[in-house]
Amino acid sequence: MQTKVSSDPSRYDQKLELILRASARIFAEKSYHSTSMRDISRATGVSLAGLYHYCKSKEELLFLIQDHCFGRVLQRLEERLQSESDPIARLRIFIDNHLSFFAANMAEMKVLSHEANSLTGERQRKVNAIKRRYVDLLEGLLKEAAPEEPAVERSAASYMLFGMMNWIYNWYDPAGAIDPDRLAELIARTFIGGFAEARSTVHGG
Amino acid sequence: MQTKVSSDPSRYDQKLELILRASARIFAEKSYHSTSMRDISRATGVSLAGLYHYCKSKEELLFLIQDHCFGRVLQRLEERLQSESDPIARLRIFIDNHLSFFAANMAEMKVLSHEANSLTGERQRKVNAIKRRYVDLLEGLLKEAAPEEPAVERSAASYMLFGMMNWIYNWYDPAGAIDPDRLAELIARTFIGGFAEARSTVHGG
Repeated sequence: MQTKVSSDPSRYDQKLELILRASARIFAEKSYHSTSMRDISRATGVSLAGLYHYCKSKEELLFLIQDHCFGRVLQRLEERLQSESDPIARLRIFIDNHLSFFAANMAEMKVLSHEANSLTGERQRKVNAIKRRYVDLLEGLLKEAAPEEPAVERSAASYMLFGMMNWIYNWYDPAGAIDPDRLAELIARTFIGGFAEARSTVHGG
Repeated sequence: MQTKVSSDPSRYDQKLELILRASARIFAEKSYHSTSMRDISRATGVSLAGLYHYCKSKEELLFLIQDHCFGRVLQRLEERLQSESDPIARLRIFIDNHLSFFAANMAEMKVLSHEANSLTGERQRKVNAIKRRYVDLLEGLLKEAAPEEPAVERSAASYMLFGMMNWIYNWYDPAGAIDPDRLAELIARTFIGGFAEARSTVHGG
């Protein structure tokens, strides 16, 4: 099926969105390196020439997937944090925001994880800058919520939390026995109860 | 460099060990599908003919890596659990055993995770059976340590714990600021404090 490229900006965005979602699914299934632009053309029904109108290369596609995901999750987070000042509540918002986004975008999460080192040059630099901002934001929240923890523990704890949340692409079925809200709640109470609140409640501060 | 195949069983095992370690490193770096037996021959200094003496195919290599890792971590765990009956202490042993093994075998852990679906047929069935036994063992420990949790939460919590521990191949440097014992302790107190002990200490029951 050939698709004419639209000049309407919103249709352009919608089509790009469709291409990115299909590409993420294919990259997640058969890996970035084993996927060709022809595979993506086949899966989306967009001609090769059409595809190259939306992105200059396969690497550009991988960049756009990563950039859109991290950009969106970060933007949503920053908006949600604006209205909350309690450290524990802010940490809960972080967990809920990350988990609800990636439970709805598990193929993207797998690609973000497995292809973290497949970007090169300026594209890699840009994605790493957003990731850095996102990780720094979490470390800042942990500093507010667990100020007595050594920095080394806090930094490790931020990756432990990412591990708990990101690993879901290996096992989780959002339509299964535990819905995303309930899973976010379980992760929040486990992580916050064990790391951020443990000293004040169990060890007495 | 050509290597003569030894008829001494212990030398045979040592050489196989070396081949498996080098293969795991290469699979972790450039993915299983992008690696050829020639790449492994080059990295190990074992001739192609020599390699095929140790394993019939590249898939056999991937199977042996997975089988050795899960087999060993499970065997060590079962030995260590024999002398302990306290539920929380048993959960700590699980965490320490898993983390100390995989902190020393991070390339293998990445391969186990990224290539979980690359095995086929009988090989996949065998590895899945060991994995199932390992996951069931953890779920049993969680049932002892947190009997009041619903089964759905307990099952999710087992994957959350694997996520915290397995994610380390993305960020952890065992020679860095936090050594494996200290990281295992942080993971144990976070997970156990937040999940297994939380109800009895914080919620009173």
